Amino acid sequence: MTQDDLRVASHGTPAFKSPLAVRRFAPDDAAVLVNIDCVGGQTPPPLTFEKAGPREQIYFDPAKSRAAIITCGGLCPGLNNVIRHLYYTLRDGYGVPTIYGVRHGYLGLAPNAPLEPMELTSSWVESIHHQGGTMLGTSRGRQEPEVMVDKLIEMGVNLLFPIGGDGTQKGAHAIAVEAQRRQLDLAVVGIPKTIDNDIRFCFQTFGFISAVAEAERVIDRAHVEAKSVPRGVGLVKLMGREAGFIAAAATVASGEVNFCLVPEEPLVLDGPSGFLARLERRLNARDHAVVVVAEGAGQDLIANRDPLAVDASGNRRLGDIGLLLKERIPDHFEAIGNPIGMKYFDPSYYIRSAPANSADSLLTERFARQAVHAAMAGKTDLFVGFWNGRIVHVPLPVSVGKLRRMTPDSELWAAVQAITGQNHW
Amino acid sequence: MTQDDLRVASHGTPAFKSPLAVRRFAPDDAAVLVNIDCVGGQTPPPLTFEKAGPREQIYFDPAKSRAAIITCGGLCPGLNNVIRHLYYTLRDGYGVPTIYGVRHGYLGLAPNAPLEPMELTSSWVESIHHQGGTMLGTSRGRQEPEVMVDKLIEMGVNLLFPIGGDGTQKGAHAIAVEAQRRQLDLAVVGIPKTIDNDIRFCFQTFGFISAVAEAERVIDRAHVEAKSVPRGVGLVKLMGREAGFIAAAATVASGEVNFCLVPEEPLVLDGPSGFLARLERRLNARDHAVVVVAEGAGQDLIANRDPLAVDASGNRRLGDIGLLLKERIPDHFEAIGNPIGMKYFDPSYYIRSAPANSADSLLTERFARQAVHAAMAGKTDLFVGFWNGRIVHVPLPVSVGKLRRMTPDSELWAAVQAITGQNHW
Amino acid sequence: MTQDDLRVASHGTPAFKSPLAVRRFAPDDAAVLVNIDCVGGQTPPPLTFEKAGPREQIYFDPAKSRAAIITCGGLCPGLNNVIRHLYYTLRDGYGVPTIYGVRHGYLGLAPNAPLEPMELTSSWVESIHHQGGTMLGTSRGRQEPEVMVDKLIEMGVNLLFPIGGDGTQKGAHAIAVEAQRRQLDLAVVGIPKTIDNDIRFCFQTFGFISAVAEAERVIDRAHVEAKSVPRGVGLVKLMGREAGFIAAAATVASGEVNFCLVPEEPLVLDGPSGFLARLERRLNARDHAVVVVAEGAGQDLIANRDPLAVDASGNRRLGDIGLLLKERIPDHFEAIGNPIGMKYFDPSYYIRSAPANSADSLLTERFARQAVHAAMAGKTDLFVGFWNGRIVHVPLPVSVGKLRRMTPDSELWAAVQAITGQNHW
Amino acid sequence: MTQDDLRVASHGTPAFKSPLAVRRFAPDDAAVLVNIDCVGGQTPPPLTFEKAGPREQIYFDPAKSRAAIITCGGLCPGLNNVIRHLYYTLRDGYGVPTIYGVRHGYLGLAPNAPLEPMELTSSWVESIHHQGGTMLGTSRGRQEPEVMVDKLIEMGVNLLFPIGGDGTQKGAHAIAVEAQRRQLDLAVVGIPKTIDNDIRFCFQTFGFISAVAEAERVIDRAHVEAKSVPRGVGLVKLMGREAGFIAAAATVASGEVNFCLVPEEPLVLDGPSGFLARLERRLNARDHAVVVVAEGAGQDLIANRDPLAVDASGNRRLGDIGLLLKERIPDHFEAIGNPIGMKYFDPSYYIRSAPANSADSLLTERFARQAVHAAMAGKTDLFVGFWNGRIVHVPLPVSVGKLRRMTPDSELWAAVQAITGQNHW
Repeated sequence: MTQDDLRVASHGTPAFKSPLAVRRFAPDDAAVLVNIDCVGGQTPPPLTFEKAGPREQIYFDPAKSRAAIITCGGLCPGLNNVIRHLYYTLRDGYGVPTIYGVRHGYLGLAPNAPLEPMELTSSWVESIHHQGGTMLGTSRGRQEPEVMVDKLIEMGVNLLFPIGGDGTQKGAHAIAVEAQRRQLDLAVVGIPKTIDNDIRFCFQTFGFISAVAEAERVIDRAHVEAKSVPRGVGLVKLMGREAGFIAAAATVASGEVNFCLVPEEPLVLDGPSGFLARLERRLNARDHAVVVVAEGAGQDLIANRDPLAVDASGNRRLGDIGLLLKERIPDHFEAIGNPIGMKYFDPSYYIRSAPANSADSLLTERFARQAVHAAMAGKTDLFVGFWNGRIVHVPLPVSVGKLRRMTPDSELWAAVQAITGQNHW
Repeated sequence: MTQDDLRVASHGTPAFKSPLAVRRFAPDDAAVLVNIDCVGGQTPPPLTFEKAGPREQIYFDPAKSRAAIITCGGLCPGLNNVIRHLYYTLRDGYGVPTIYGVRHGYLGLAPNAPLEPMELTSSWVESIHHQGGTMLGTSRGRQEPEVMVDKLIEMGVNLLFPIGGDGTQKGAHAIAVEAQRRQLDLAVVGIPKTIDNDIRFCFQTFGFISAVAEAERVIDRAHVEAKSVPRGVGLVKLMGREAGFIAAAATVASGEVNFCLVPEEPLVLDGPSGFLARLERRLNARDHAVVVVAEGAGQDLIANRDPLAVDASGNRRLGDIGLLLKERIPDHFEAIGNPIGMKYFDPSYYIRSAPANSADSLLTERFARQAVHAAMAGKTDLFVGFWNGRIVHVPLPVSVGKLRRMTPDSELWAAVQAITGQNHW
Repeated sequence: MTQDDLRVASHGTPAFKSPLAVRRFAPDDAAVLVNIDCVGGQTPPPLTFEKAGPREQIYFDPAKSRAAIITCGGLCPGLNNVIRHLYYTLRDGYGVPTIYGVRHGYLGLAPNAPLEPMELTSSWVESIHHQGGTMLGTSRGRQEPEVMVDKLIEMGVNLLFPIGGDGTQKGAHAIAVEAQRRQLDLAVVGIPKTIDNDIRFCFQTFGFISAVAEAERVIDRAHVEAKSVPRGVGLVKLMGREAGFIAAAATVASGEVNFCLVPEEPLVLDGPSGFLARLERRLNARDHAVVVVAEGAGQDLIANRDPLAVDASGNRRLGDIGLLLKERIPDHFEAIGNPIGMKYFDPSYYIRSAPANSADSLLTERFARQAVHAAMAGKTDLFVGFWNGRIVHVPLPVSVGKLRRMTPDSELWAAVQAITGQNHW
Repeated sequence: MTQDDLRVASHGTPAFKSPLAVRRFAPDDAAVLVNIDCVGGQTPPPLTFEKAGPREQIYFDPAKSRAAIITCGGLCPGLNNVIRHLYYTLRDGYGVPTIYGVRHGYLGLAPNAPLEPMELTSSWVESIHHQGGTMLGTSRGRQEPEVMVDKLIEMGVNLLFPIGGDGTQKGAHAIAVEAQRRQLDLAVVGIPKTIDNDIRFCFQTFGFISAVAEAERVIDRAHVEAKSVPRGVGLVKLMGREAGFIAAAATVASGEVNFCLVPEEPLVLDGPSGFLARLERRLNARDHAVVVVAEGAGQDLIANRDPLAVDASGNRRLGDIGLLLKERIPDHFEAIGNPIGMKYFDPSYYIRSAPANSADSLLTERFARQAVHAAMAGKTDLFVGFWNGRIVHVPLPVSVGKLRRMTPDSELWAAVQAITGQNHW
């Protein structure tokens, strides 16, 4: 990756004075170091992200602007907060008179959209942040960039905010490219949304910590069940297709998990150092165990799975590792003549449809506000990322298509290992 | 049922002055009318339950008494609260010096018990009420009354408090009968525990309203999911084997449910007035729907189900109506060429392992305290029931084996019908 | 009290067939025994309340009816639930076309009302039950019945539902009397609202158990503070002007309170058996203590208090017992040279503005639905009470002006004494 | 500040191989850039913090080590989590055999300590993280470093972990200096604790986001109260002596606050651009308002305040700005003949005694684990700080005595201004 890869696309020279009453505008060459870790007294070479923030000169005339907000893919705590903060920053901050909410994701920009875009109002957004889900509706799957850009032109939109995961940001990039091809003044500024926290160049996405909090509740209940019967096991399946961040963070937060299985680590069931033997030794020693498994773990164990199959959002189809363990674990203990009492928890939709907690409310505000600043300044083909505590402009091409995963020597995974002691049994 | 059926077994004439410093003792002939509804100016015939309360004269000498507490069957919010209140009333109220906690239900009184009974202490019980589950452990299944009574004799127990559902109370009755056969001075006073709220002569059992509160949370999430996609359906399976009280009460409390399916009402899927056609009309009109199904509903729809099969607790084995609907509903809409987006929620263990909320904390206190009063007074072969707002003594023979169900013309079911409007589509 | 006192006023013979599709209508002579406790084999004399429920014949033509809902006095969890259930039962159940929400209590019926009554709609009520407070607004104080009835005539209202405490029900009675004087067909059916749970002939009012749950949270925090410092005391002031129900129930639910001070019991601070000496002995023995005081306790201790002063709602003005104890307790321990670390908690508004929990959601539904049934049947000058587990019609004259208090020999107070052991120090 | 100021004190060359089974140890010259913002293409000069992490070679022999944990000052969510993670990392990670819990802060190291240090055990720490407060107890005020070091020598402690705010870290520094004077092998590694989030070189302290979440609940209730009466005002006093982080973050998270008053901004009550006039214009326009005030705001408005007075912890004594506003606001509106309905909320202890939420559970784990790594490596006279997303070693001398405050042009304060619009009225 070079500094050129991190250069943000822009519509041109900002021409308007910002209407914002902020104390300090961000100079346009403000930047944030990408690498901040030094070893051996060496400062890392100064690769930087463009820093987010309100610019004093902006590219678009707010009074003549029209914005569109769009939410795509699976639910995630905080979607309504993002919508609300985008709306208020656009309307009360910049004075943008018209803000559309596109219904049901990119489908709402397609000719067969079930519902037309709606014009948002203050009374409509006023209390939506107390609710989970998205008041605009969502859908999965891609639409043709050509027809979406046609629709945006028809609506007169020059500011587009797609909220969604990797697939959505791919779509945002396609729209930006198509707009550039037509030489349209359309700023496309994405807001990354992934409950799995697996977007590259975004340390933490909104909704993640709310999901961890809900997962922790479930783990606590699994712990209660496990401790209430002889040889009790609580098995909890959590989200995490390619990355086990939720499973790992909930394990650390709860402090009650004994085995945490994630996609980043190979899962071996059998043999003396396999998971089943370790679980057996744990149960013999302590009489109960709590096991957390991320949905993407152990996919090679699932028979007849087509590793190339994908769903409407382009994500690979997963086999159900939860159900596999739900069968294999009791079978193992039946087979050795020392049965267990296992309870299985599969909370998935319950977790992702929760409202945002305070930590995520704060994070959504930062993403949404900075996304508006970027778009008003004429930036495009980027998303707002969260990097070393700063909000930065991440060009879509450097992130999309490359998921972030937990590294085996990360601080989080070290914490999981230490807290569970799962390799010591 | 006659007044004779409601007569409570007693060990004999109370001989000791109660050590309690209460302002007003309950006279032993205090009673509560069973029927309090009058029609046509007719007072109902005066059938009564014996009223619970502290007696001024008690049968057992507290200083020479030993108590045992035992929790059986599935988890239920409030078990630890009951244990704690039994302990404090016995020890601090009456001065009973030794209180055992039997481990893992009736299994803990059997020769093959994995753990011996433990002697409870104040520091052990002090904070247990903040936790779900049972700190004593539980198990399913019956044990021979003879061996259990042998064990109780060995322990020197004269006050036994079995906490559990219908199966547990059957076991309590068997112990009481066996003790009477041996002319043992053993008071057996049950505390009804059933998250399904289906125990006869108990309007409301502890844990029920906590379970409803947890179920309401899940329903709210299902509502969020259903509203977030075109033609969205949230399907929630809740507990309720023979009685749909949780499903019905959560439906009324939440106010977001459109169809509530319970064991008490036949479930017809097909045909113009069947559930699928009603759901179709609802979706066409409103674009989303929330469906709640109690696990015991629609059992006749499940192929290859053996209607006589029972589990270790003697409950009939149920087919999984949740999974059946999870398949049948989307299939129906696929078949008519108008597919839906359905999300399935099966929270079961999550709900029952919750800690007790305030309402249930209050109820557990009443049950536990009155159970101790009854036992100290020498009453036996009964459970403490909740009737018309009073705690009463219910002889085990009039309740066990006969589950309580929601009647079709009850106020609760009328509320469900009115709130869902499920028969109007 | 005689049976005549319990006779409910009625507009006349019901003339219309009910449009409700209920399975069983309530016969008009359905009644509920007032007293259900028997002693010495004596059945109590058959004094009865009229039983609530949908009547098959109703007095008012729904299609020509107009209803008004009004919320008065202090906030209480569940007000929005009551409004919502009244609305749905009137509109979807009976087909009443016009339902007004009066703004800011009785003030909204006065000539100087800041806001005119609003016509309620389904989209307005749809989600209000998730919020605390009252979406209609409230106010304190009485208005002249003549001008209120003038306003109701102007609005064409024949069904009036005042939701409020004793003062509000007095106002409801005055409206009913004025309507009768003018021979108006106006049904006045109150719904009792009092977070203090002090309304006569209503075992439990809505909002009470939600308030207890919130109070329990505060008590838990006070317990944490008290245990964190040497000689720590947590002092919590709770609502309860004339009756200590919240303080007592929260004490029992929490299990962490050591002294519970209520208006029903005299409070003596000084002397060897006074509260301060008991607290001292408790602290010497256990090093921490949690004290709960209801706001109406110990009023005679407050200097310069005018015992005849009343507020806008006609409630007597209270001195602040919380502040008095906040000073007197540390002063006492300073004086004896053994100071303590005290933390004071005064959560009041925090508690009453909470949304209803599940238990209260269920209760509000019962009150609201039955109130509509009563009004449609032509009953008037009553409120819907909760008695021995049944909803009943309570004529306003037998309840208003006489508050319910906790009796010293009640089961609740006995539980408080046993759990705190406050008289043993 | 120079790089020399950031050099961490160390006992000497690490001599032992770490017993930890981590995948990657941190090299001892690992560092984190202090400044990561660049402007005008200039990389900031490479000032760095030493990076936290497990070292491969450690200074102390774990088998011969004794640790002591100590919690000081006011309560804060997460104290028990820190204790628990310190314990597990020391005992299960490194194999340190003896871990003391000092009782009631530094007082527990003084000759007049009410309780001797206790030896912690796994069963004691197992579930403490579910509770607020500190199980070790706390106290305010300094003790002489000489007597504390005497006590630590008597106990044989070589690893000391003081958890507390600026005053506590000053004490930690004094202990480290005294130990160095005596040439003692005592590692002193602080863990910053301040609910106000005002410690220098620590972007976010544990407990802060839990406090914000609790504050948000209170604000929501204040909003409910304010909207329920004509001209309703909800006034909420929150913690924040020198820094308004809690008030600001809760304002942003809640989205319902109209005025946020913090110590960092001068508070002017009177005059046309004063707070009271702005509030008046807001009320005239919108009929309700929510006001949040941090306890340290507007101190110059408080008459007779001694600006030099300090409390036992060395914090300056504050006047009660909450009570002042509680009087001044209604007085103003009385005076202009247009009274308001104001409700005052002062939740303080309620907020700080809450248990840690998931986000804080995760943060406590990072602080605690890295503190142990630092101490085992022989580092001393430092605390573990949180900087640009990394845990770093902050020498105590560069932080203590200099509180962190919110800067007027920070992103957080800009968000507060935008969301409240408080300067637009």
